[in-house]
Amino acid sequence: MTGDQTVSRARSDPLESSDSVRSAKPLRDAQFARLEQPLDLERGGRIEEVTVAYETYGNLNEARDNAILICHAISGDSHVAKHNDRDDPGWWDIVVGPGKVIDTTRLFVICPNLLGGCRGTTGPGSNNPATGRPYGRDFPTITVGDMVTVQRQLLEQLGIPQLLAVVGGSLGGHQALVWAARYPEAVRGVIALATSPRLTTQAIAFDVVGRNAILRDPHFQGGQYYGKAQGPDVGLALARMIGHITYLSPEAMTEKFEADRLQPRDVAVEFEKQFSVGSYLGHQGAKFVERFDANSYLTLSIAMDLFDLGSNGRELAAAFARTRSRWLVLSFSSDWLFPPEQSRHIVNALLANSAPVSYCNVQSHCGHDAFLLPDELSSYGGMMRAFLDNLAATSRGAGSMEDGPHGTTSIFRQHRLDYDRIVELIPSGASVLDLGCGSGGLLARLMHRARSADGLVRGSSLAEATETGGRGRPPSDIGGQGCPPSVSRLVGVELDESNIFTCISRGLDVIHADLNKGLGAFATGEFEFVVLSQTLQTVQDVELVVMEMLRVGQKGIVSIPNFAYEPLRRMLYEHGRAPKSGGVLRYEWYNTPNARFFSIADFEDFCRQKNIIVHRRIALDTEAAVEISENPNLKADLAIFVLSLAKGLYEI
Amino acid sequence: MTGDQTVSRARSDPLESSDSVRSAKPLRDAQFARLEQPLDLERGGRIEEVTVAYETYGNLNEARDNAILICHAISGDSHVAKHNDRDDPGWWDIVVGPGKVIDTTRLFVICPNLLGGCRGTTGPGSNNPATGRPYGRDFPTITVGDMVTVQRQLLEQLGIPQLLAVVGGSLGGHQALVWAARYPEAVRGVIALATSPRLTTQAIAFDVVGRNAILRDPHFQGGQYYGKAQGPDVGLALARMIGHITYLSPEAMTEKFEADRLQPRDVAVEFEKQFSVGSYLGHQGAKFVERFDANSYLTLSIAMDLFDLGSNGRELAAAFARTRSRWLVLSFSSDWLFPPEQSRHIVNALLANSAPVSYCNVQSHCGHDAFLLPDELSSYGGMMRAFLDNLAATSRGAGSMEDGPHGTTSIFRQHRLDYDRIVELIPSGASVLDLGCGSGGLLARLMHRARSADGLVRGSSLAEATETGGRGRPPSDIGGQGCPPSVSRLVGVELDESNIFTCISRGLDVIHADLNKGLGAFATGEFEFVVLSQTLQTVQDVELVVMEMLRVGQKGIVSIPNFAYEPLRRMLYEHGRAPKSGGVLRYEWYNTPNARFFSIADFEDFCRQKNIIVHRRIALDTEAAVEISENPNLKADLAIFVLSLAKGLYEI
Repeated sequence: MTGDQTVSRARSDPLESSDSVRSAKPLRDAQFARLEQPLDLERGGRIEEVTVAYETYGNLNEARDNAILICHAISGDSHVAKHNDRDDPGWWDIVVGPGKVIDTTRLFVICPNLLGGCRGTTGPGSNNPATGRPYGRDFPTITVGDMVTVQRQLLEQLGIPQLLAVVGGSLGGHQALVWAARYPEAVRGVIALATSPRLTTQAIAFDVVGRNAILRDPHFQGGQYYGKAQGPDVGLALARMIGHITYLSPEAMTEKFEADRLQPRDVAVEFEKQFSVGSYLGHQGAKFVERFDANSYLTLSIAMDLFDLGSNGRELAAAFARTRSRWLVLSFSSDWLFPPEQSRHIVNALLANSAPVSYCNVQSHCGHDAFLLPDELSSYGGMMRAFLDNLAATSRGAGSMEDGPHGTTSIFRQHRLDYDRIVELIPSGASVLDLGCGSGGLLARLMHRARSADGLVRGSSLAEATETGGRGRPPSDIGGQGCPPSVSRLVGVELDESNIFTCISRGLDVIHADLNKGLGAFATGEFEFVVLSQTLQTVQDVELVVMEMLRVGQKGIVSIPNFAYEPLRRMLYEHGRAPKSGGVLRYEWYNTPNARFFSIADFEDFCRQKNIIVHRRIALDTEAAVEISENPNLKADLAIFVLSLAKGLYEI
Repeated sequence: MTGDQTVSRARSDPLESSDSVRSAKPLRDAQFARLEQPLDLERGGRIEEVTVAYETYGNLNEARDNAILICHAISGDSHVAKHNDRDDPGWWDIVVGPGKVIDTTRLFVICPNLLGGCRGTTGPGSNNPATGRPYGRDFPTITVGDMVTVQRQLLEQLGIPQLLAVVGGSLGGHQALVWAARYPEAVRGVIALATSPRLTTQAIAFDVVGRNAILRDPHFQGGQYYGKAQGPDVGLALARMIGHITYLSPEAMTEKFEADRLQPRDVAVEFEKQFSVGSYLGHQGAKFVERFDANSYLTLSIAMDLFDLGSNGRELAAAFARTRSRWLVLSFSSDWLFPPEQSRHIVNALLANSAPVSYCNVQSHCGHDAFLLPDELSSYGGMMRAFLDNLAATSRGAGSMEDGPHGTTSIFRQHRLDYDRIVELIPSGASVLDLGCGSGGLLARLMHRARSADGLVRGSSLAEATETGGRGRPPSDIGGQGCPPSVSRLVGVELDESNIFTCISRGLDVIHADLNKGLGAFATGEFEFVVLSQTLQTVQDVELVVMEMLRVGQKGIVSIPNFAYEPLRRMLYEHGRAPKSGGVLRYEWYNTPNARFFSIADFEDFCRQKNIIVHRRIALDTEAAVEISENPNLKADLAIFVLSLAKGLYEI
């Protein structure tokens, strides 16, 4: 959002006269396209002539299926990255470039300046053909939807009917959401960073104060300050200062300015310089005025505040009803301007449409700006790269990066006998939600089995529910690129960030969430199977988690360690010691993640009390690797239950 | 902090000419005192003539020991409450008045307008005797310390040498902290609400932007706008709007404006009115300008930003080295302007000085303004009332409100046999920290025993460490009012807010904290005994908690349920069921708060592994109410251990 790297790049201007914009100029590397049609605006009115400034990186391949659209945030521009080593820095050089997360040796990147902006694309500083002078405040109210319409026309003119992915953070994320909602066939993947379905009231409030500072600046002159000696520089600088505070986390601010709290640098600005954070803000404000147009700021800021995909889950789900894309949604834990809760709203709406989505709330201290900063790049950038790799692999018909049936990335880095049996219990093609999926071992095996059954190992076309999937959408060819999808919906829920990274790398869909908060994101009966494998003993709210799994799953599969296994009983009875064993019972009493100790009989009692139907119980002695049929509560160390809340649709 | 109730109270002006302040007037009910001496300022300079506007409520008693000083926040004034039913609303009517939390039928309340303010006390709008015109920007930089100096002189002139308590929130809290740090003998109690040792960098940043809006308003005219047609109204309104956002929590803002997000009320202001939150902010800004002076805002805002009791724990502890007061520190969970962490810094600094302090982070959705709002009044107001009652009772030599030795407010609402033994293990007069103290049952018994030993049941003079208390401060007569203190330091740590309320009502010192985060607030060896009674089985990080208790305590006393008690063993061995019993083992496996299951032998093993010395073990069969000497790991259902990390100073 800061994008201050661009400050030194005010250059010559091929299409627009630089004096038509008081304080901003298009960029040296920009190309320009004049849209073939006038632009009819969502909120009424029309812009007769629209020019788009954009930059491109890499080459469009012959199949024209490697294009990435990058949408910038409020103060960004088309210069997302350097074009070569001698070039000026771009605002996202850490992500875009040869060999980087968005690898321009393989991908074709397009980054247009926004409609309403001031770096080459038509905006309030552009000449109004009707008057022959800059629009100023006559520039109409535009929306994020209008911005996307312009981008869509640009891509059509460039001959790109479908994007491999649209990528954007903050306001750029808003554009990405609209792309996917409005042009489902045109967007194979979406990466939405630090964004939201609408602004919080608090975020709007900050915007309002910033706009008031501009509008009430006496030099604003009704917006017709172009070419005048003075413009609303103070107001724009104040707006930028407010914005800047909201882009940083409180902890990052303290880190940055604690050492010299009362020793500000003496910057050449007419703002208060008593505190170091003040001299910094004054400097940022003054710099921004050099490169940005106040009318553009008003226009884009209003567009952000008006952006609204829905105020509740139902509306939001409806907004994404037609999505056909694969999604990666990333929020940042310390982002208070676009709080993670808002990303979860997006994710929930996508899940409500059974859309293939992975979500991670990346642990970060960098606030809203985190997606522009290198601090957590290894995490958010790594997930983006893996997601794009899988997306590209899918279109090439190649396999994803997952480890195969007996990968070594399972939780316990050992063969999981219970997985073998759980896989057997789940019919091929059934939709599965794995709660506490770890690094995705079980889901990877299910995916591999489905692909093998297909006669080929396909890419990660986990997207579609098959006809056996009950409530899933009708099959489509997304991802499968023409071959009928037999891999049904496989989704994981996991709390650990590094496990989520691994799942995404394996081409799995995984949602970052805490089971103890319920499964509100999932609809009743949405999955044929919900699995809870050796996780229940770590759960705080057992009743909630079990009842939720049986609401969301037509059947639930629970595997539990049996605390009444004979050797464990003896430890307590004969030796008076807390039972301990291998696997999930390998810990000491004082450092175990397990918080629930119970037996097969206890669990069966629980099921009776809660009116849970046990369709099947498989008891195992995992050490001997045998199934136990007699006296399992004594002889088995692990049991797998198939459960439901009512008579199942079919018996296994 | 909002204090908008005062807007309608611009009245006649007895001491200052109303035209000397452009937009603010002193209040009808204010009395005025001219200080007998000029005011030498902390940061240099002097104000020759200082007038203080103040209001009083209730009557000073003959002993002159019932006076409460209330310090207001940045935009408050002397009118803290109505004087009668026909009076204008005060800014804290919910707290101050007959029968209320600060009960003016029993207490004498003084509320002065701040130095630098604009409601009667000398400030930038006052006449500068040197020039004969208002100070304007010539008003010197003042500090919170200067404000307190003025208040101290006022109280001396009123003949009040000692306050029962000083009470303040936000900037008012800053003043309360300075009072206690600087005049330890003059302040028997402190209630510090929603305050901090210094502002966060983020809070300073918002202040800087607000001040820049005022300073760069063309009508500011170097601060000499008094009597002019126009002043920096837009700048002041912008500053107020920013402030307003920071006083509310994001969730409260959403609640307030969600319903009519895009249907603002049409308020008569020249600010943007496109969004409901915007029309609200515009209205608040415009209202504020009617009652507040921009120069006062600058002056007070700078004083807040400069306020700094220390940037680290050591400095902050030094600031409170001389405190002799009892403290109640309250933060609010959704306050992001003065985040709870900052209140914990204050509490830690007080604990580092062995000061008697209770702390609660009140669960609230109201943000920084919570202490001015009725939503959580039953909690924060209740704690304030209980604290003041105990403080007043102490000075009258009456008992506190605690329940006596066998009160019914213990965790399990039943007699705790383990408490009997733990009380016996602790020598009379020893200092005790009770971790997970619940509603304070054990501490209340220890307090009662100490008082009984005293031959009288005294008030809650828990403050002082006795000479046996090792590192405590030398005994003083605070609280005891002349009788030698034999009750040593008794402090509880507790997570549950309602338990904290109960502890405070009992006159106990209790700190709101999560044991799993360690005991960083307490010094090594600070207490003779640290107790963990039937709590260890609920703790996540057992090693951390035990090692921390043995660092802070010269000895630790741990009581645990014995999971290897014979009937429990049989349940698992014979019936294959998770053991269950009475007391803390009364829960079902799926809803128990217990997360650790271990036996006496397990715990003894743990102690051996961690080089913890077991000085004594008492094993009990609590059902039979007998001590068990033979085979306790089988025969006892509960054990009490006395532990230390090194040979104790004495053996019990």
